[in-house]
Amino acid sequence: MKKVGVAILGLGVVGGGTYKILDEHREFYKKIHNVDIVVESVLELRKERALALGIAENKIASNIAEICSNPEVDIVVEVIGGVEPAKTFVLAALNAGKSVVTSNKELFCKYSHELEKAAKKNNCGLFYEASCVGGVPVIRALLDNLQGNKILSMMGIINGTTNYILTKMSNGGASYDEVLKEAQKLGYAEANPTADVEGFDAAYKLSILSSMSFHTKIPFSKVYREGITDISAEDIQYGKQLGYALKLLAIGKNSDSGIEVRVHPTFVKLSHPLASVNDSYNAVYVTGDSVEDVMLYGRGAGALPTGSAIVGDIIYCATHNNFNYSTFKNTENADPSVKFVTNFESAYYIRFDAQDKAGVLSKVSSVLSKHDISVAQVIQEDGKKNGAVPLILVTHLTRENNVKKAVDEINANGGFAKVASVIRVVS
Amino acid sequence: MKKVGVAILGLGVVGGGTYKILDEHREFYKKIHNVDIVVESVLELRKERALALGIAENKIASNIAEICSNPEVDIVVEVIGGVEPAKTFVLAALNAGKSVVTSNKELFCKYSHELEKAAKKNNCGLFYEASCVGGVPVIRALLDNLQGNKILSMMGIINGTTNYILTKMSNGGASYDEVLKEAQKLGYAEANPTADVEGFDAAYKLSILSSMSFHTKIPFSKVYREGITDISAEDIQYGKQLGYALKLLAIGKNSDSGIEVRVHPTFVKLSHPLASVNDSYNAVYVTGDSVEDVMLYGRGAGALPTGSAIVGDIIYCATHNNFNYSTFKNTENADPSVKFVTNFESAYYIRFDAQDKAGVLSKVSSVLSKHDISVAQVIQEDGKKNGAVPLILVTHLTRENNVKKAVDEINANGGFAKVASVIRVVS
Repeated sequence: MKKVGVAILGLGVVGGGTYKILDEHREFYKKIHNVDIVVESVLELRKERALALGIAENKIASNIAEICSNPEVDIVVEVIGGVEPAKTFVLAALNAGKSVVTSNKELFCKYSHELEKAAKKNNCGLFYEASCVGGVPVIRALLDNLQGNKILSMMGIINGTTNYILTKMSNGGASYDEVLKEAQKLGYAEANPTADVEGFDAAYKLSILSSMSFHTKIPFSKVYREGITDISAEDIQYGKQLGYALKLLAIGKNSDSGIEVRVHPTFVKLSHPLASVNDSYNAVYVTGDSVEDVMLYGRGAGALPTGSAIVGDIIYCATHNNFNYSTFKNTENADPSVKFVTNFESAYYIRFDAQDKAGVLSKVSSVLSKHDISVAQVIQEDGKKNGAVPLILVTHLTRENNVKKAVDEINANGGFAKVASVIRVVS
Repeated sequence: MKKVGVAILGLGVVGGGTYKILDEHREFYKKIHNVDIVVESVLELRKERALALGIAENKIASNIAEICSNPEVDIVVEVIGGVEPAKTFVLAALNAGKSVVTSNKELFCKYSHELEKAAKKNNCGLFYEASCVGGVPVIRALLDNLQGNKILSMMGIINGTTNYILTKMSNGGASYDEVLKEAQKLGYAEANPTADVEGFDAAYKLSILSSMSFHTKIPFSKVYREGITDISAEDIQYGKQLGYALKLLAIGKNSDSGIEVRVHPTFVKLSHPLASVNDSYNAVYVTGDSVEDVMLYGRGAGALPTGSAIVGDIIYCATHNNFNYSTFKNTENADPSVKFVTNFESAYYIRFDAQDKAGVLSKVSSVLSKHDISVAQVIQEDGKKNGAVPLILVTHLTRENNVKKAVDEINANGGFAKVASVIRVVS
């Protein structure tokens, strides 16, 4: 039976989960996959983590060089996260002829061109299913199932922390700050939640997924990004009344006019399958020119679900002799011939603090109509609130710039209404 | 650039869709996948189908031998359906050294052991993503993503025709016969709908999916099967009231007590992600010991979605040098050491035609309780209907045989209630 040695770099949540899965399933993999997968080495500064997992002291490496020169190690699993030292370690492993499995979205998003070059040069495998959406099999679906399609669009709830926060805000009516604190207490949000709540994490993943979907490099810098920190419980409740659920949506589209990639809070119509993806569940909704709509749903994070994706890659790597690489020109920057659309098409939810006088709706909609924006839904409250009444509109499809101009004009014009919030809408 | 020749056997809905996708995307695949995929030959008795697709007359083969001996053909796509002549043709192609891509669930379910043996012997690829759930990437997810998991269970809505019928019955309150006729008119159901409505199609797919999930052969004969022809609009409406949607569910479970595989109408709790899979959409909900819950959702049938799965396999086959085979002992019959559970655990919806007298609920529940069945939900109508009133119960988890015994006892005992329908329930 073929023996395959694995080294794990980093024994945090995902590294620990990966070790546990490999350890507990070793006999199962021998029986089913005819391969003996053995963790030969780990690299972890906090030695106690390794010992707590029952890893023998002689398997704890002191540095990456030790792992690279260990002939028993065939596959290096990088689950450290962040750019450095992960990048240096991964390149060292590839250059030492080891295949690499990584869950590192920031690293893969920013440096896939360098990593892939090193992998090709050394004839090694480079696997990153776990970098996007944890246990949900989206990378391989794009590579090996949907690759006959021109992918027209993808929409994803691809960050568990923000989906947990928005679900709780929606269910309980609590404020962002309250729910964030609770999420931190429960371990669903980190002490410094910026990467999640400001949409960086989702944008890294969207950069990777859209590069693969559209077969051209979509650098992180091209992803429009807005987080959820300004979302008010009020907007979520009005959205519900209008038939929408609020999600931090990652959207990629490819059409004749170009490519658009954006991460922002979005009202999703309740009848859309993405609207019922709640709590820390994630999902990616892909539309291809042949397959039509496909949705892949599951746990986007967590020790075992992400470990499942890593171990899937390890077994794939251990049982295949040749490796394919991405089907896009993997460069640092975008291909100059690709046009990026920033004035994108969308429907919009706009909440105004309006004067409590007759005729305000008419004034507001007259400005909107001047900018070619037509109104689909309205809520006009009659109760006073700080001298102003809430007026909520949902528009038909229009363009980003039209909305910006209309909002500026309404805010500037005479004070009959001030724009309190603008949220994009997907039907 | 590598050139890969394809032959398509059968130009029905799926064959035609496959041809169109390959034809329209030829330049795209050259650019993206660096491979020139050309349809070199087709086998189709109705020549006019080929001509209507714009296929040159000299590419229409007269018989399978011509395709097998054509050195330009590398991959044979079998989309004829049914066992013969598909089986003879596929074996001939494999024995001639051609790789095979098939969408044929009945063939693969019943003869995968023979086909795989021939593929291995001849070092050919054998791909069958399109055999299960059309464009939904479930086969590859089981093979290359979730293969590190012990799969605990899978539940699927894997037949589009029945899901279309049940969705329409649920929305409009029409009877099975009315909706079937409409579905036949619209092309959602065949003139002879038996394979779909009696659950054969779903059972073939469940046999394939559960064999792969549980890494042991699950023959078709082991799949318990009940169709939807006896479903009444009445039951669907009572189910709705109780918070359930009716689906033809394919269920596979693997536990210490054994394997259970079954296809039958099932009430699914509305909060479950499968409950909102409507119309001709399909979904498979897989639970693994590491990944937790994953759901794959999309079009389970249709020319282009199924064509997408076939073309995905063609491109995979064309761009890989080595092929892996199933990770289960692919035999004709079940491994004698595997225990199949038939007295399975479930909750049950039971509708009675009950006497319109006080004390009937007490009599019914007393018999149930004698068989260790406890009641979770009750609807007791007060209006008369043919001298009897409907009494509807949903039980807590119990066992199949307990319910059978209780039903027999109630039907036999004195006539205070007759069982009108029994439907299993998933929460």
